[in-house]
Amino acid sequence: MPGLANIWPAPGTPLSELLTPLPVIDEARMADNIARAQAYMDRLGRAFRPHIKTHKLPEVARAQLEAGAVGINCQKVTEAEVFAEAGFDDILITYNILGAARLARLKALKARVARLAVTADSFEVVAGLAATFCADAPLTVLVECDTGGGRCGVQTPSAAAALAAEIAAAGGLRFGGLMTYPAPGGAAAVESFVSSAKALLDDAGLGCPAVTVGGTPDFFAAGDIPSATEHRAGTYVYNDRAMVRAGHASLDECAMHILVTVVSRPTPDRAVIDAGSKALTSDLLGFQDHGLIVEYPGARITGLSEEHGVVDLSGIAGEGPKVGEVLRVIPNHTCVVTNLFDRMVFHDGEKVTRVLKVAARGTVW
Amino acid sequence: MPGLANIWPAPGTPLSELLTPLPVIDEARMADNIARAQAYMDRLGRAFRPHIKTHKLPEVARAQLEAGAVGINCQKVTEAEVFAEAGFDDILITYNILGAARLARLKALKARVARLAVTADSFEVVAGLAATFCADAPLTVLVECDTGGGRCGVQTPSAAAALAAEIAAAGGLRFGGLMTYPAPGGAAAVESFVSSAKALLDDAGLGCPAVTVGGTPDFFAAGDIPSATEHRAGTYVYNDRAMVRAGHASLDECAMHILVTVVSRPTPDRAVIDAGSKALTSDLLGFQDHGLIVEYPGARITGLSEEHGVVDLSGIAGEGPKVGEVLRVIPNHTCVVTNLFDRMVFHDGEKVTRVLKVAARGTVW
Repeated sequence: MPGLANIWPAPGTPLSELLTPLPVIDEARMADNIARAQAYMDRLGRAFRPHIKTHKLPEVARAQLEAGAVGINCQKVTEAEVFAEAGFDDILITYNILGAARLARLKALKARVARLAVTADSFEVVAGLAATFCADAPLTVLVECDTGGGRCGVQTPSAAAALAAEIAAAGGLRFGGLMTYPAPGGAAAVESFVSSAKALLDDAGLGCPAVTVGGTPDFFAAGDIPSATEHRAGTYVYNDRAMVRAGHASLDECAMHILVTVVSRPTPDRAVIDAGSKALTSDLLGFQDHGLIVEYPGARITGLSEEHGVVDLSGIAGEGPKVGEVLRVIPNHTCVVTNLFDRMVFHDGEKVTRVLKVAARGTVW
Repeated sequence: MPGLANIWPAPGTPLSELLTPLPVIDEARMADNIARAQAYMDRLGRAFRPHIKTHKLPEVARAQLEAGAVGINCQKVTEAEVFAEAGFDDILITYNILGAARLARLKALKARVARLAVTADSFEVVAGLAATFCADAPLTVLVECDTGGGRCGVQTPSAAAALAAEIAAAGGLRFGGLMTYPAPGGAAAVESFVSSAKALLDDAGLGCPAVTVGGTPDFFAAGDIPSATEHRAGTYVYNDRAMVRAGHASLDECAMHILVTVVSRPTPDRAVIDAGSKALTSDLLGFQDHGLIVEYPGARITGLSEEHGVVDLSGIAGEGPKVGEVLRVIPNHTCVVTNLFDRMVFHDGEKVTRVLKVAARGTVW
C-alpha cells in the first residue's frame, strides 16, 4: 500500500487522474495576477509587499519579488522563520509580538534577516520588544493604527505619536512608521488618520519613514491613499469568490480551484460533493453558501459537514451532475484553504506542472 | 534558530510556557469521556465504534478500543490507511468510494485490514466496488440511508432493499447491513426507516447483519433506536461548545481548550486574541460567535480574521483581560481544530504529559 507521500502527482499527470478534494493552482492565472498587481503599484510609484499568508510558499513569494515586490509580509514569527530559512531578507511581521518564548524567537530571527520589522499598538508590546533588543542590532517597529478596521491598532493620531515616541526612545528599537489594515472602502479614513499622525510626528521631530496600508479588495483603489508609501496584499495572488464580489478580479482571474467529486445524488435537487469544512473551510465572508461551482453556477453549496458538501440543485436547468463527476469549486476564501493542505498542486491547462510543499502551513505562532 | 519541530514542549513543561494559539487536551477529562460513553453503550448492550475524525490519533483510538469499542469509524480511505498502518484491524469507512485511484487504494487497504467495510448509497458506487473486489476476498458494504439528515443516503426503505440486493448479488461484495447518520432528535425517523427496511430485507432473504447509527449530540438517547446494533460517535472524546449546548456534556467535560494570548486592547470594550480562523476555524454550528472564553464567559468572540479574534467585552464586569494575558477557549467545534495542528499537546493539570503527532491530519482523500 503506497503511503500518503505517494498521493501527490508527478508533473505531467492529467488533472483528471488526481484524487479529490484537492486545490489546484493555474500557473498562468497566478502569473498574470502577480504581474497585474505589481504593474499597478509600479505605475503608482508605491512599494508593494505581498502577504505570504495566502500561499505560504517560498517559491511563489520568490516570483512576487522577481516581479518587483520590495519584501514580504508575514503575520506570525514562525511564518517568518520559514521564509528566513528560504533566504528572504526583508520581512515585515504585522503583529504584536508578546511573551518571552516568542520574543526570544524574534531575536533569533533578527540575527538572520537583514531587514526585519514588526508592529506594535500598545506600550506593553513596545516594552517587551525594548527589553529584548539592543542598540547594536536594533529592531524596526511600526505603530499599528486602527483606521476603521476594528481589529488591532491605536485609536487616535495622538496615540500613534505617543507610541512612536516610546519606540524612538528605546535604545534597541527604531521607529519605522505607521501601519494599518483599512476597512473596505476606508481610504478617506486612512488618509485622514495618517495625515494627522504624520503632522504630529513631524512636530515631535520623529518623522515617519513609511506608511504601509493593505488589502486586496481595495487594491486598485490604493491611489486614494496618497500618504501611503507601501501596500500589502495577499489574496490577489490566487483570488477567490470574495475578491470577485469585491470587484477586484473576474472569475477568469481566480487561480485556485478545488477539484471535487460528486459522491451522491440522493434526490433530483440534491448532490453531495466530497469537499466539506476540512477542504473548503467554513469561511462564509458574507456569502450564504460555501463556494461557486464553475460548471453549475446556479447550484448552491448550502451546507458543509467535515467531509461532505451538500449542493442544492433546484436553481439549475437539467439533471445536474452525475455520481462520479468531477467539478471545480472557486472557494469563498482561498487563504484558509491553503492552510489545510500539506502540498499545493500547480497546473498548466489540464496537466500538473509542479507540486510544492506548503512550507509555512501550520505556522500559527 | 530552532526549527518548528522544536516548538513542541517536552513532558513536564508548564502550560504557561507554551506558545499560543495552541489546543491542549486534558488527559483526565478525555479518559472520563471515553469511559462514560463506553459504559453507556455497554449498559445498552450496543456495539460502540468511535469515529476517529475528532482526534485523528492512533494512540487515542487505542484507548477507545481498550475501553471496549469494537473497532473504528473513518470517513476517508486515506484516514483508514493511517490507522491500518498503526495496526487497527476493524475499520468502517462511512463513505461512497468512487474513482479508479481511490478504489485501487481501497483494495490495497483491504489486504491489510482483517475487517474492513464501506458504505454505498447508489448503484454507481456499488458498481465501482463490485468491479474492484473478488469473491476470494470480498468487501463488506452497508447501505447508507437518509433518515432525515439530508446528506447522503437512499431515500426509502425499498431503495435500501434494492441496493442491498445489488450488493448481495455481486461476487466480490457482501451485504453488511444499514448505516445512517441521523438528524439531531431523529430517533423516531431512524427507527421507522430501519424497521421497514429490515422487513423488506427479511422478505428478500437478505437479512440485515448490522444497523449502525451515529452521532454525539443524541448519544445518551441511543436507546430510542432499539433496532440499532452499533453506534458511531467522534466528538464525545473531547466535547465542545456545541455538545454542551446539545446537553451531551457539561463545560467540565470539555477536554479541548485552545490557549490564546490577548495581543491587543484597542478600546475598553475590545480585546484581540491571537487565535483566528487558522486556529479556531470559522465553524459556527449555529452560534453567533466563535467559542467560549472560560475566564470571561460574558465576553464574545465576534469576529475572526486569519490570525486574530476580535472579542467584545461589553457584556462583562470589570476591565477585562490585559495585554499578554493567556485565556482558554472552548471551541464551537473540536473536530475541525484538530485538523489544523500537526501535533496535539496533552496535559494533566498545568503540566504537559505528552505531545502526539496528529497522524491522520490532512487525510481528506
